[in-house]
Amino acid sequence: MKILVVNVNTTASMTEGIVRSARAAARPGTEIVGLTPRVGPESCEGNFESYFAALAVMNEVVQYDGQYDAVVQAGFGEHGREGLQELLEVPVVDITEAAGHVASLLGHRYSVVTTLDRAVPLIEDRLLLAGLDRRCASVRSSGLSVLELEDDPDRAVKAIVDEAERAVTEDHAEVVVLGCGGMAGLDEAVRRATGVPVVDGVAAAVTLAESLVGLGLSTSKVRTYAPPRPKRITGWPL
Amino acid sequence: MKILVVNVNTTASMTEGIVRSARAAARPGTEIVGLTPRVGPESCEGNFESYFAALAVMNEVVQYDGQYDAVVQAGFGEHGREGLQELLEVPVVDITEAAGHVASLLGHRYSVVTTLDRAVPLIEDRLLLAGLDRRCASVRSSGLSVLELEDDPDRAVKAIVDEAERAVTEDHAEVVVLGCGGMAGLDEAVRRATGVPVVDGVAAAVTLAESLVGLGLSTSKVRTYAPPRPKRITGWPL
Amino acid sequence: MKILVVNVNTTASMTEGIVRSARAAARPGTEIVGLTPRVGPESCEGNFESYFAALAVMNEVVQYDGQYDAVVQAGFGEHGREGLQELLEVPVVDITEAAGHVASLLGHRYSVVTTLDRAVPLIEDRLLLAGLDRRCASVRSSGLSVLELEDDPDRAVKAIVDEAERAVTEDHAEVVVLGCGGMAGLDEAVRRATGVPVVDGVAAAVTLAESLVGLGLSTSKVRTYAPPRPKRITGWPL
Amino acid sequence: MKILVVNVNTTASMTEGIVRSARAAARPGTEIVGLTPRVGPESCEGNFESYFAALAVMNEVVQYDGQYDAVVQAGFGEHGREGLQELLEVPVVDITEAAGHVASLLGHRYSVVTTLDRAVPLIEDRLLLAGLDRRCASVRSSGLSVLELEDDPDRAVKAIVDEAERAVTEDHAEVVVLGCGGMAGLDEAVRRATGVPVVDGVAAAVTLAESLVGLGLSTSKVRTYAPPRPKRITGWPL
Amino acid sequence: MKILVVNVNTTASMTEGIVRSARAAARPGTEIVGLTPRVGPESCEGNFESYFAALAVMNEVVQYDGQYDAVVQAGFGEHGREGLQELLEVPVVDITEAAGHVASLLGHRYSVVTTLDRAVPLIEDRLLLAGLDRRCASVRSSGLSVLELEDDPDRAVKAIVDEAERAVTEDHAEVVVLGCGGMAGLDEAVRRATGVPVVDGVAAAVTLAESLVGLGLSTSKVRTYAPPRPKRITGWPL
Amino acid sequence: MKILVVNVNTTASMTEGIVRSARAAARPGTEIVGLTPRVGPESCEGNFESYFAALAVMNEVVQYDGQYDAVVQAGFGEHGREGLQELLEVPVVDITEAAGHVASLLGHRYSVVTTLDRAVPLIEDRLLLAGLDRRCASVRSSGLSVLELEDDPDRAVKAIVDEAERAVTEDHAEVVVLGCGGMAGLDEAVRRATGVPVVDGVAAAVTLAESLVGLGLSTSKVRTYAPPRPKRITGWPL
Repeated sequence: MKILVVNVNTTASMTEGIVRSARAAARPGTEIVGLTPRVGPESCEGNFESYFAALAVMNEVVQYDGQYDAVVQAGFGEHGREGLQELLEVPVVDITEAAGHVASLLGHRYSVVTTLDRAVPLIEDRLLLAGLDRRCASVRSSGLSVLELEDDPDRAVKAIVDEAERAVTEDHAEVVVLGCGGMAGLDEAVRRATGVPVVDGVAAAVTLAESLVGLGLSTSKVRTYAPPRPKRITGWPL
Repeated sequence: MKILVVNVNTTASMTEGIVRSARAAARPGTEIVGLTPRVGPESCEGNFESYFAALAVMNEVVQYDGQYDAVVQAGFGEHGREGLQELLEVPVVDITEAAGHVASLLGHRYSVVTTLDRAVPLIEDRLLLAGLDRRCASVRSSGLSVLELEDDPDRAVKAIVDEAERAVTEDHAEVVVLGCGGMAGLDEAVRRATGVPVVDGVAAAVTLAESLVGLGLSTSKVRTYAPPRPKRITGWPL
Repeated sequence: MKILVVNVNTTASMTEGIVRSARAAARPGTEIVGLTPRVGPESCEGNFESYFAALAVMNEVVQYDGQYDAVVQAGFGEHGREGLQELLEVPVVDITEAAGHVASLLGHRYSVVTTLDRAVPLIEDRLLLAGLDRRCASVRSSGLSVLELEDDPDRAVKAIVDEAERAVTEDHAEVVVLGCGGMAGLDEAVRRATGVPVVDGVAAAVTLAESLVGLGLSTSKVRTYAPPRPKRITGWPL
Repeated sequence: MKILVVNVNTTASMTEGIVRSARAAARPGTEIVGLTPRVGPESCEGNFESYFAALAVMNEVVQYDGQYDAVVQAGFGEHGREGLQELLEVPVVDITEAAGHVASLLGHRYSVVTTLDRAVPLIEDRLLLAGLDRRCASVRSSGLSVLELEDDPDRAVKAIVDEAERAVTEDHAEVVVLGCGGMAGLDEAVRRATGVPVVDGVAAAVTLAESLVGLGLSTSKVRTYAPPRPKRITGWPL
Repeated sequence: MKILVVNVNTTASMTEGIVRSARAAARPGTEIVGLTPRVGPESCEGNFESYFAALAVMNEVVQYDGQYDAVVQAGFGEHGREGLQELLEVPVVDITEAAGHVASLLGHRYSVVTTLDRAVPLIEDRLLLAGLDRRCASVRSSGLSVLELEDDPDRAVKAIVDEAERAVTEDHAEVVVLGCGGMAGLDEAVRRATGVPVVDGVAAAVTLAESLVGLGLSTSKVRTYAPPRPKRITGWPL
Repeated sequence: MKILVVNVNTTASMTEGIVRSARAAARPGTEIVGLTPRVGPESCEGNFESYFAALAVMNEVVQYDGQYDAVVQAGFGEHGREGLQELLEVPVVDITEAAGHVASLLGHRYSVVTTLDRAVPLIEDRLLLAGLDRRCASVRSSGLSVLELEDDPDRAVKAIVDEAERAVTEDHAEVVVLGCGGMAGLDEAVRRATGVPVVDGVAAAVTLAESLVGLGLSTSKVRTYAPPRPKRITGWPL
């Protein structure tokens, strides 16, 4: 089985981290291919960037030359998963939703700890659309930007642990979701500090993609995610 | 006052219709400038196209050379309004939301009549995010594609009137919203046939944009719609 | 265009403030006529008073001798708008709802800052009925009564600014709504202090009423707001 | 124990029916006193009439000269209960809410069958405010006006039974609530025809009022329903 | 009238307290019979215990040899009421739901104060299913186990009063519900300390059961609570 | 990896079908052990039976003598999963929830097709508690009992296909969930007939259990699902 794991930003080192996390979660025999968009922002921290990333991810996948069995969109709280589902026949799993579904299996309520405060409403909106809002206790911000996570992992762990603890004690979260693709790999540290299960979206998405492929299930094509109708598209692919 | 009214697709004749509707609704003294994206799909009827349109609209607006007081995004149920709000200091009004707000002032429940069935979930999602779902009785499809609306207006009116009547009698809608930018101008015919107020999103959005400008109000910049942080963006503008 | 702006209480000085705010928001050419109920409470701070005010407002409007194009009900969180919509053919805009709709166009979440704590549940109920609850972050009380707002404007500004700041920092509001007709005119001070857009319901309602009149739209008469059936009404008008 | 049962309209024969129903439900030793408002509409079938009735009911109760232990507001889907709760120290029970609470104890979902279609949204709004919406399967209209119920009981029973059966088979209601004070006494006929429990709001409200009095419980006075503040009220009582 | 009041745990002294509370609330002429399950946990503080208790209660009732008119399930936030409703023809009232319904009649929002923190999500779930969530301001934990309530009543009162006060001041509760069958009898102390109405579920349930019997109403048998179909059940009764 | 798959009823042939379905979905190397409760009903079609089954499943698992890595509760819409989560350290996956989570990844809305109409509210309740209600278009009944599914598979397929088609065309479901453990194995037939993805809860649950084990994640033990406190439990295990 081969899974494309697509970073949403143009930072190759972040793709590497995501791929590492994906491979650690994948079963033996699953091949993980990481893609880094050729266009778009170096990190996604708002709607404009997220909308650009959405298109950049689709652009990368449609131009990918090779077979694959599933696609994981590796940006937390980002736009675009619905478009990929239209364009592809294989299953598409978004890491935000994967994390929410897995977290729901582990506790009565879960919280997300993300990067900047401005990302919180985007994540809340995505969880609402995915129907994952009822079991979500809170989305909390660590105050760190996406790229700061990379530059100073120790400070990142501390900031994330602090918010995770507040989520548990103040918001009654029983599970913590790492709310950024760039946090992949920090789950063990946060779990040790807080004592609750910690879900990394990339790992969750890879196993869910494997499950869907194994079950022979893919996106329904009867309505919302039917293939785009044939028409003139100017400037595509980018 | 000058308002940019941006079509979401590349079909210039549709921009013309939208501009006509916008001008008919605008106060004396309001200048309407229509923009047609240089890239993107010729019509938006699904998530991939809508995501491309979102970026194409932002691309057009940021490259527009001139002053303006507000922007209307003239695609019904489309993505992207949040990105424009980040990029701009002036008010941004989406026609879907404008129509929903205006319809809420006119009756206890409203229904949307749109084009293809596949557009229904997109519109439902946008209304949910905008907090306009509670008063929405239904989103109904006329079965016509966006471009068929242009090609055969008589058939379009009939199909829309049929669904509007069902919305009123079966779903208890008291107001009907025309669920496509390309339906601009059909409101009078539908109103005559159904006896209920009919809201055209373009007209509604223009008057709401005028209101915001008149009130000296624009998008809040403290959190969700703060300007994008300075960073490397590859391939932008498109 | 002529708009009746109806105060909900019997305090004429408050009507004057409301009318000033309405005129400042109105377009050139819009005539604002203020009405003060001849019966009812001198201020509305609870359900009994609000119910009386509802009827007092209807009573004033049905006895108004003259033409008009729209009615603004200028009491925040008060009952009665639905009754006016039944009695009149022209559009009716309630300032609570107008403020909520306008605030929704400006930010991801808005908060209301009102007078006494006891008014909070009334406002929450009205926003719920209007379908404006999902985007409302909180309704907060300044602790001042309606009439204290008039008597000590400096203290009022400070109390409202304090709560507005809490709404922004604690409840993540991106827009603040002034939750009392008697706060008309304080928006600039609050905006300066908090840095977020501040919506005055009276101004918002006037521009929305102008929009509806301009669009040729008024209340749907097919169901909820159909004219009252002919019947014996004892003691009416009051 | 003495309970005031207040009709919301001025039709004395309807008060008599309500009182009959109340007495049939009351325990031995409970005295039922029926009040008919001196002002207001002869029947309530819309918001204007309902708002007038709200005030007319409060007007009647505050002028009632005598002791009593509880008040039942006997209009289905009408405004005003919150105002009574402010004005009085004794428990106040609205028949709409009483019926919804009792129906919730009897089945997974309940439906309301009311009079005219225009009353449906009023009832839906009242159930929403009361937090009784989640278990409500539907509010259905029999198409009969309030006064037609009185004039032609046989036709009324048939129309109500027809809708009740649709509620059971189509909306999966397991309990039917009679949605008009004037339907008091028809419960047995509807129960026989449909095979489901039928709740008459007047009877339900009387027993709930007796329960509250028996438990020594009454309206909380700490916030929403605190007594009105002392102030100048013009034209009160009516 | 004879009402079975069934404790959910095997602690007979707790049954005695519940019966005392039930008798204090019952009308003259109502006979209260307390049942203590022969199997199950000595207290219910989690889902396993609650599920066992659910079956233990049904087991006790089906083996009860005698006539009765209604059953009260006297465990707060526990499972099982739906099963009893299937097995019995007489009305079944759960104390959690009874308390929520009664509290809804007394104030705009109510809070529950329960025992251990781990019981909070169970209670929230039961209120959600019962449609009693919208008016619930919060469910708060006193930190005391069920059996500690019995052992140290003074400490219990203090802990409950502390949380009740927080519910009123921080969560804006206007009514407090005692969230444990073992708190029966503490209502007066909490009411004195907080100044808000305090609802004891056992008392509330008894009066609601009396009301249902008085109204001649019982569980609907058409769908959810139809009697179990005849089939082989191994090991039943326990 | 070894997964216990526990039937909720005492019918061994049904356990066999479930185990077959589980094995077909499991990865190579996963051992599936089927358990049939020694007590309880021969099929679960209502709340009493479901509550008994909940305890019977827990009873079977706690008495199982051997190691295992995860537990699947193989009853659709049944009670009990929360109790298992308290009792066990390994992950517990309920087939209802597993199916809902997987279906959410495949389409905008999903419907459940179950057995008898009386099971519908139980399933709706379980989906509500699991936070899986927003994306659920409908729960539909085929009218067949659990045991009829076994006796007449052809008729079962036809009845399920009929309802599945209604779910797609009338309720706009894009995915169909088989709403009974006894339907395991019918997915292919229904998929062929309807053209939409069909999710079998047993298969979905097994792959999700494998995912959780693979990710090293299990139930959070900090609050709702903390192990039962040590106490006297009479009659346990059964």
